[in-house]
Amino acid sequence: MPIDGASALARRALTLSNPNPRVGCTIISSSDGRVIGQGHTQQAGGPHAEVMALRDAQARGESVEGATAYVTLEPCSHHGRTPPCCDALIAAHVAKVVVATSDPNPLVAGRGLERLRAAGITVELLPPDSEAARASRELNIGFFSRMIRKTPWVRMKVAASLDGSTALGNGVSQWITGEAARTDGHAWRARACAVLTGIGTVLEDDPMLDVRLVDTPRQPHLVIVDSRLETPLTARLFGPPAQGLARKIFIYCAVIEPQKQAALEARGATVICLPGPQGKVDLAAMLRDLGQREVNELHLEAGHKLNGSFIREGLVDELLLYLAPLLLGSGGHGMAGFGPLQTLDDGMKLAFHAIDPVGEDLRIVARVRGHDAFLHA
Amino acid sequence: MPIDGASALARRALTLSNPNPRVGCTIISSSDGRVIGQGHTQQAGGPHAEVMALRDAQARGESVEGATAYVTLEPCSHHGRTPPCCDALIAAHVAKVVVATSDPNPLVAGRGLERLRAAGITVELLPPDSEAARASRELNIGFFSRMIRKTPWVRMKVAASLDGSTALGNGVSQWITGEAARTDGHAWRARACAVLTGIGTVLEDDPMLDVRLVDTPRQPHLVIVDSRLETPLTARLFGPPAQGLARKIFIYCAVIEPQKQAALEARGATVICLPGPQGKVDLAAMLRDLGQREVNELHLEAGHKLNGSFIREGLVDELLLYLAPLLLGSGGHGMAGFGPLQTLDDGMKLAFHAIDPVGEDLRIVARVRGHDAFLHA
Repeated sequence: MPIDGASALARRALTLSNPNPRVGCTIISSSDGRVIGQGHTQQAGGPHAEVMALRDAQARGESVEGATAYVTLEPCSHHGRTPPCCDALIAAHVAKVVVATSDPNPLVAGRGLERLRAAGITVELLPPDSEAARASRELNIGFFSRMIRKTPWVRMKVAASLDGSTALGNGVSQWITGEAARTDGHAWRARACAVLTGIGTVLEDDPMLDVRLVDTPRQPHLVIVDSRLETPLTARLFGPPAQGLARKIFIYCAVIEPQKQAALEARGATVICLPGPQGKVDLAAMLRDLGQREVNELHLEAGHKLNGSFIREGLVDELLLYLAPLLLGSGGHGMAGFGPLQTLDDGMKLAFHAIDPVGEDLRIVARVRGHDAFLHA
Repeated sequence: MPIDGASALARRALTLSNPNPRVGCTIISSSDGRVIGQGHTQQAGGPHAEVMALRDAQARGESVEGATAYVTLEPCSHHGRTPPCCDALIAAHVAKVVVATSDPNPLVAGRGLERLRAAGITVELLPPDSEAARASRELNIGFFSRMIRKTPWVRMKVAASLDGSTALGNGVSQWITGEAARTDGHAWRARACAVLTGIGTVLEDDPMLDVRLVDTPRQPHLVIVDSRLETPLTARLFGPPAQGLARKIFIYCAVIEPQKQAALEARGATVICLPGPQGKVDLAAMLRDLGQREVNELHLEAGHKLNGSFIREGLVDELLLYLAPLLLGSGGHGMAGFGPLQTLDDGMKLAFHAIDPVGEDLRIVARVRGHDAFLHA
């Protein structure tokens, strides 16, 4: 199926196209059914999948007149960083466009299809429950979240022993999981628009939180929840991230300290003050702000206190959990410091989404029940 | 492959043949390769697999003279509860016996094969790493443990939230996992020779710890670790177990209290005093005693304190863990109360053995590293 080829192409944009959606396009010759062009979305500001596929056909010396284009997401009809893809398809005189799923933004959904139809192109939108439609929405869960909910898809990453300890009581946590799991964790960082941590982790571990262990064409931004602006100016995170790539650093605080703010901004950070109750950052407002800053998937990699705050406020959407085949007993740190609860119903209810061995560890992706409803609406 | 058929037959003895091993036998006609007899081990005192297969052939009116018998475990050569299977095969004039794996008891291993060979039967022992040999040893891990290590295979069953809580701080634990997981837990009880719990669980939950949620031809025995003989005479566990089946109850204590002992024995229990340090039961001695009482697989279903004691003493072999897709935060009870640890190396190191969804929960079987070495020796 040509749409499956387009889906495979879309996956190649996983770490590349942020904050644009991951889209693939395959163009099929009308005469003999050959693939005459294919492409996927490039880096933001670069061409989208349709334009890449049209260019590919041109480079091959193929005519796309009368051909059928298979696209995993409704072609854009607006001028963004690039001209609308609809116009490119129309100008190329393709005869038919098959679209896996429509634009997630309810305000623009269908406009791309209308525009194509108005130009005399046959348009087929696949059923919402078709494999290609589901795969496209899944691949772009963060983009759909930002378009529909106006906030990122929040993925909480935890590495723990099988009995739920993320660190011993004395703080030792390196390394509970193995090298394969740590590498895999970097692959998940790489697909996120931003990695988020708390000031506690910054002060204790002085981490880089960049993508080092896997190749990546871009670095995710770094977000620090730092109510009292305690991030040291000497923190390693201000150094250049790995692989010679730049990133933005956003520091969210609850109090304005102009001098420290100026010093942090001189280090390249953007300081945003969003005070909530009890001198803490308003996390929900922060997520809305990050949505406006085009963050699709937010990779939360913090300690149990900030994890607990996110969970208490219902802001976690997905758990990315690496479980090591190890019991550490009592006295260690847990995954998330919320509670104590009075009833089991007060717990955070998830559903397992994917379970895979990674090296000697186990990777569990579980979603908070109901939080992905927007994906199937 | 006929030996695969025998392996499948052996699995049918899973909850039936304890404390005898789970063995299957398939008899193949020498003339046309048809299956002319099959059987598996029956309840203790009943016929073994070979005799069942021979009887099956007889009932079908088939002659086994010159046939080949495929057996998953070396036929016994000694008079136990039944006459030796070797003699039955010899008397039936089979021409060949193919054996998946030899007798685990190093003192008798090979004697069955010798006896068959001495009678002029061709004997083939499959390689130790063949699928059938591995499957037979795996299926009989408890029997092999008792024969080789002289102690049961100790399987610790835990149901917990994904972040490792087995109960809230207020004690609420019903039900963290779902109905399918609870039913599955009973299936694992059913395959064990005995279920073990501690006096804490008896006093708090007053459980039956019998097999109720799945059909079973026998009930596992019940073992209670009760240092000070505090088991109430009115405990529900003294009532008749489900499915009209009897079981033995063993109560291990660290102090002799003749009156209480007499009262418990009047309720049908066997009281065994095995004092260890600090007024506790000597758990290692208890396992040796249970080995002598023909316990193959011991199903440990206790609270975090007794779990912690077993782990601290290195007595757990396998973890049977049901993880619910749920986070319960901090303040709950953990799986096993050992520690606090100083280094990660002090943790109990496991290897994942099997991971399967059960209803909405996840079932993880993990083995303590090195503890199954006897199975591959």
